[in-house]
Amino acid sequence: MEKLKQTLGMISALDQEAMTKTRSRVDSLIKPPGSLGRLEDLAVQLAGITKKTYPSVDNKVVIVMSADHGVYQEKVTPNPQVVTAIQTPNFAKGVTGVCAFAKQAGAEVIIVDIGVAVDIDHPGVLQRKIRYGTSNMAEGPAMSREEAIRALEIGIEVAEEQIKTGKNLIGTGEMGIGNTTPSAAIVAVMGNYDPFEVVGIGAGLAADQLDHKANVIRKAISQNQPNPHDPIDVLSKVGGFEIGGMAGTMLAAAAHGVPVVVDGFISTAAAIIACAIEPKVKDYLIPSHCSAEKGGKTALDLIGLQPMFDMGMRLGEGSGAAIAFNIVEAATYMVKEMITFEEAGIAL
Amino acid sequence: MEKLKQTLGMISALDQEAMTKTRSRVDSLIKPPGSLGRLEDLAVQLAGITKKTYPSVDNKVVIVMSADHGVYQEKVTPNPQVVTAIQTPNFAKGVTGVCAFAKQAGAEVIIVDIGVAVDIDHPGVLQRKIRYGTSNMAEGPAMSREEAIRALEIGIEVAEEQIKTGKNLIGTGEMGIGNTTPSAAIVAVMGNYDPFEVVGIGAGLAADQLDHKANVIRKAISQNQPNPHDPIDVLSKVGGFEIGGMAGTMLAAAAHGVPVVVDGFISTAAAIIACAIEPKVKDYLIPSHCSAEKGGKTALDLIGLQPMFDMGMRLGEGSGAAIAFNIVEAATYMVKEMITFEEAGIAL
Repeated sequence: MEKLKQTLGMISALDQEAMTKTRSRVDSLIKPPGSLGRLEDLAVQLAGITKKTYPSVDNKVVIVMSADHGVYQEKVTPNPQVVTAIQTPNFAKGVTGVCAFAKQAGAEVIIVDIGVAVDIDHPGVLQRKIRYGTSNMAEGPAMSREEAIRALEIGIEVAEEQIKTGKNLIGTGEMGIGNTTPSAAIVAVMGNYDPFEVVGIGAGLAADQLDHKANVIRKAISQNQPNPHDPIDVLSKVGGFEIGGMAGTMLAAAAHGVPVVVDGFISTAAAIIACAIEPKVKDYLIPSHCSAEKGGKTALDLIGLQPMFDMGMRLGEGSGAAIAFNIVEAATYMVKEMITFEEAGIAL
Repeated sequence: MEKLKQTLGMISALDQEAMTKTRSRVDSLIKPPGSLGRLEDLAVQLAGITKKTYPSVDNKVVIVMSADHGVYQEKVTPNPQVVTAIQTPNFAKGVTGVCAFAKQAGAEVIIVDIGVAVDIDHPGVLQRKIRYGTSNMAEGPAMSREEAIRALEIGIEVAEEQIKTGKNLIGTGEMGIGNTTPSAAIVAVMGNYDPFEVVGIGAGLAADQLDHKANVIRKAISQNQPNPHDPIDVLSKVGGFEIGGMAGTMLAAAAHGVPVVVDGFISTAAAIIACAIEPKVKDYLIPSHCSAEKGGKTALDLIGLQPMFDMGMRLGEGSGAAIAFNIVEAATYMVKEMITFEEAGIAL
């Protein structure tokens, strides 16, 4: 709890002076004012986050949190739970989707076992297991409040380790069979939606099973009565270890002035928790894509994030965040590589 | 004319065998089927274009065509015409918007003077001037049919030079004060729209001048009677040299099996001409963003291109194409870096 408290205390508002300076430069670059649209706003946001007029994001990492879910027992996904365990080392081997995109973007991938249902024996996997998967939220809380705080703190610690090595752009990713169910539960509770409005097919649930998935979430909410005004209560009762870990990563990024790119539906659920814990976190978040998962757009709307691209992606893992890294870096190149009208000797 | 004819004769349908092989691999990668959305289709398209199961786009270039417009005299833009001449060498110096994004994406930028109103004296600018700007299309044809064909052939020649040096991904860009006016004219003629439906503010026209801009286009269409069934006639009567050059670049890319990324509104107008000359070109085109210019979406719809991202950009230059390069490359990394379920030893 101490680590979490300390981190929250470090989160401040964006640096207005850097933002003003960067905005001024962006407005004077050789282009019609405003003609680079959201890239201009992104550059200004990066300045505010990093406190630098010329922000740089040349050292990138996607932090992938992997965990299992007790609610798997309720048949909310057609995939065997063992896929989480099989896939987890594959992030260390560099052969999953996010790894491909991270390689293209010149980014590292860090994989953390924060709660996979079996032991993962691979030297490239960070061992931070809280427990062998959450409990079944349809029957009781997914985890204790202490475990939820531990998940947040693991996310903080892993992110801080990365920031200490010089990382200046973080993406959030995850692996966990069944994890669209707790994500939808979080969105439903925090946004006061009926679960059916925000459940999607996840990794490939049959459409006629969506009613069942929504019913499982209704049961979990009814059973646990998560308090929407207490995000840690929501995380503990209907969340997941990897979701807590991702939320913690976002808190640490905000505390240390590092921009953090939100991936798809599950990352957005984590962002909802992080922003509810500390609303200032929102200014440190950079959206990537709109997930093709049914609740994706609703989840982004809940915290006012507007996606930059929509490619029909719904893999998760941090795959969309890795692709967005290039766009974020493009905004920084705009500030430092383009010249101003004055520098070009043009008086308009 | 010989060069154009020869190029058109080289454009074939996409390679079905490579597409089938790549689709098969993409479907077997360790992810839920279809979960990488448009990246999957993009990978298959790239395979069809390049005839390779594992396509590569590691050698990228944005070809920027620069030219002036006689219709400038009609006060369709608030910017001085001399900005075209001042900006053209800035592409060679690497300080414009597209240069910043190309640098981030590891791409080169080639700048071609295909019709700037004054001589451009800079060693980095390719000298391919057809004439010192087009004629005023509100009074007569912007150029002769021979000049339109010359513009197309210059585009072909410049692209072929790049392809010969090993470039395997081309983006189209442009510079030319006033060039949203001929672009809107092309979209209006080819799509049978009233000009007002497709005119936008370009580089910063006052909103109350949009009626005037539409009227200038109406006058040009009425004066010249471009034939929508003859795209070269449309290009010559209401087009521009840089638009012809970009259309030629697209034809050459298709002829040589090189994917070509379309930038914003002006690039899309060029794509409309290229696709009307040879419909098979469309399969070689990769859209990038939806321009914030009013006619941007309409122009894309006219040839059935769906943008990958929407960032409120309207700079042109090829800036959106350069940003899209990363997404295109991400699709190729997906094919070669991710492993299949079989390779992972997972039997689902």
